[in-house]
Amino acid sequence: MDVNDMMLARERLQPYIAASPLIYSNLLSAKFNKHIWLKLETQTPTGSFKVRPAFNSILIQLEEAKINGVIASSSGNFAQGVAYAARELGISVMIVMAENTSHYKQERTKALGAEIILCGNTYEERYDATHRLAKETGRLLLHSCNSNETIAGDGTIGLELVEQLGEKLNQDMTVLVPVSGGGLLAGIACALKNSNMNCKTVGVQPLANASLAKSLQISQCVNVGVVETVADALTLACIGDIAFEIIRTCVDDVILVSEKDILLATRYFIDEHKLVVEHGGAVVLAALLAGSVTTENVVCVVSGGNIELKM
Amino acid sequence: MDVNDMMLARERLQPYIAASPLIYSNLLSAKFNKHIWLKLETQTPTGSFKVRPAFNSILIQLEEAKINGVIASSSGNFAQGVAYAARELGISVMIVMAENTSHYKQERTKALGAEIILCGNTYEERYDATHRLAKETGRLLLHSCNSNETIAGDGTIGLELVEQLGEKLNQDMTVLVPVSGGGLLAGIACALKNSNMNCKTVGVQPLANASLAKSLQISQCVNVGVVETVADALTLACIGDIAFEIIRTCVDDVILVSEKDILLATRYFIDEHKLVVEHGGAVVLAALLAGSVTTENVVCVVSGGNIELKM
Repeated sequence: MDVNDMMLARERLQPYIAASPLIYSNLLSAKFNKHIWLKLETQTPTGSFKVRPAFNSILIQLEEAKINGVIASSSGNFAQGVAYAARELGISVMIVMAENTSHYKQERTKALGAEIILCGNTYEERYDATHRLAKETGRLLLHSCNSNETIAGDGTIGLELVEQLGEKLNQDMTVLVPVSGGGLLAGIACALKNSNMNCKTVGVQPLANASLAKSLQISQCVNVGVVETVADALTLACIGDIAFEIIRTCVDDVILVSEKDILLATRYFIDEHKLVVEHGGAVVLAALLAGSVTTENVVCVVSGGNIELKM
Repeated sequence: MDVNDMMLARERLQPYIAASPLIYSNLLSAKFNKHIWLKLETQTPTGSFKVRPAFNSILIQLEEAKINGVIASSSGNFAQGVAYAARELGISVMIVMAENTSHYKQERTKALGAEIILCGNTYEERYDATHRLAKETGRLLLHSCNSNETIAGDGTIGLELVEQLGEKLNQDMTVLVPVSGGGLLAGIACALKNSNMNCKTVGVQPLANASLAKSLQISQCVNVGVVETVADALTLACIGDIAFEIIRTCVDDVILVSEKDILLATRYFIDEHKLVVEHGGAVVLAALLAGSVTTENVVCVVSGGNIELKM
């Protein structure tokens, strides 16, 4: 994994996805007496960062994808990313989803034209169903997180941060990144370190899914089993091995946050900050609420906003 | 009314309110095949632009406000602005609200420390109650929209747009602004014209409250009576006379939007754009949905986000 892969990914994505906005949060800066920026991945075409790895994975194998169609397994956000990318590129797409995926994320994926196949709720059941269907249908299998293509796609966020913040990244700065499979954290950390930025890059996980914290303790990937957290985008039970190798060398710390703080953070984003953020994206604010961030400057990577809200 | 008043307002406000972010909307730009920017007044401390005129009105008469306290009448957003500004400046505050003001806006105002007095639902009832209470209590009366102070405060948005967009404002650009009493539209239009920008400045009203359209037709302020629209921030039955004088010379057009398009626009902002926008702020998108904007470039002034959302 190389920062050049990320630069190539960025070029590849440019015709399809513009840089996401980085805004200075007056509200959070005042609340925490820090300088706080929000990298709004909620503003991408499918409302989460996953559209980046989805596009990169398809574009890198475009001819095969066009001929055979694609298949992917996802709890929701990667599904929407793949469905959107496939639609834009004129490619047939099948998505394998756990039965407990929220109706909302299922509907949004269907609305983008994907065929949905439901399967059991564990990672293993989904893995088995996806590989079986890939074999049966001949579709090109897209990995949702543990591949060079996805991590390079995720890393484009880090490259954008370097452009958007420049030297500020060297000034007592922490970049907070939500963690499920670890690809987003690995991609951003790799991009920042290889751009010679000396900010801290810190992963944030629900306490209910301490897969990264536990893996770092024993220096190998730990599978934590079935995860129950309100952050439905952060339920992968195990950090991907490719991501983990990068995280070990490029990431500075991991913060675990309570369900209570995740709920408070999500409500704060919606009610006070007037930004639609899903629980999995709000963990970065939960880390601030818990008082776990010590630098003066902070970037929160707000990874997604796919949450159903009623008026 | 002079652009210098706005520059003075901007200096006055600077210690208390930072510039609101302007973001390029990739989603809307793609949807409408235009270049569309969003001026996010939802990102101010009280979630609407009204905190600007509130601060300016108090700061301009700070000594009297400190001695006697302040009183204001508002359907919600000005109330929150005044309550917030008063709290920051250590000033006692009483707010007169119509009984039909949403529970949500009442609660948010109370949470900022204001004393709330409820009154009847027409503009006249509110006007009478407010003036009677101002007399009885000796509090300084703050006008919510038809005063030089409020319009100068509103105009600071126009000055920020000039800084944030510069020359782009001269390139086939329309600036869309929600209209209730007309102060926001007047302030922004005045700031833009006096900065020698040749963009169009266009007001947007619910069809159910065509007060500005009707007033422009006969060149005097028309009172349209009781207004019923889902856009509860846009229910003033009459354009203020000070605002109207500015609007007549500085504003290019007014667009009327249906309730259906306001509802669609609000849902689009929340569900797809992942931005919390109230109906009164979403009218600018309703104008785009209705196909009423012909320039290639558009700035939508997203005036507020105080809408109750349930997970």
